Amino acid sequence: MSTLPLYRTAVQPEWIDYNGHLRDAYYVVALSLAIDALMDRLGLDAAYRKRTHCTLYTLEMHMHWLHEVLADDALDIDARILAADRKRLHVGLDVRSARHAGPVATAEFMLLHVEQGDKPTSRPFPPEIALAIDALARAAGPAPWPGPGSRPIALPVR
Amino acid sequence: MSTLPLYRTAVQPEWIDYNGHLRDAYYVVALSLAIDALMDRLGLDAAYRKRTHCTLYTLEMHMHWLHEVLADDALDIDARILAADRKRLHVGLDVRSARHAGPVATAEFMLLHVEQGDKPTSRPFPPEIALAIDALARAAGPAPWPGPGSRPIALPVR
Repeated sequence: MSTLPLYRTAVQPEWIDYNGHLRDAYYVVALSLAIDALMDRLGLDAAYRKRTHCTLYTLEMHMHWLHEVLADDALDIDARILAADRKRLHVGLDVRSARHAGPVATAEFMLLHVEQGDKPTSRPFPPEIALAIDALARAAGPAPWPGPGSRPIALPVR
Repeated sequence: MSTLPLYRTAVQPEWIDYNGHLRDAYYVVALSLAIDALMDRLGLDAAYRKRTHCTLYTLEMHMHWLHEVLADDALDIDARILAADRKRLHVGLDVRSARHAGPVATAEFMLLHVEQGDKPTSRPFPPEIALAIDALARAAGPAPWPGPGSRPIALPVR
């Protein structure tokens, strides 16, 4: 298995914009909900968050929109752990819909494990979560990540 | 003037997530609405889109989340043209809220001018739009863009 089937959603009617297609930002709403599903899978679920006051904060995201999505489409989102350290997760996600063979969008997120309180403070993952992250990273296998990849955004020099 | 005051929105109650703060993806919804306001300012408005069947498609976005935003906050979004060519706009945006001196998020978008139809096709900007883009790019002046900038997402090597 190269990626993790994670989350499926119908395209909501209010997600369609004046261009007659899925507004760019609502791909991101679906990705954000997919990351909630990834948190559940890693044990960073509501019970964990309530017990520890720890959660994930999004630091950074780089996304490519590759194909239009229309009102009748559904979105299927897979994820892969690209890297992790004591406190951070680098996750790659791809968004697919039935009318395209390849992804309609890809994104990379950098997420930080944080304890909430008066001042949110970064915290190492507890051992059982670190093990779950490691297991999921191994499950992805050696296949290359299909997205265009993160790089500085720039217009080509002409 | 270093950036363009572009768009203001209240944080909607349904934009707050289980962490008690603005969900990552709804910063992007606000940014997407700010880009609509930028299109209006450049003349790429509803009348233009109806007359020409041309619009902007989002190709790519790189975003940094810098501070939490809470339920009572409003978001103020400014934009700057970082670069442009015959068909593309590279736009930098920053999101501010009253509780922080600096931006709460920054983002760079790459946008493509497209004619919609059976198959969306990239098109050069017409002369009057190219002039409006150039005027707006000059208005930003030489001040450096305040965001962390787009770069490959990666965990630091330890």
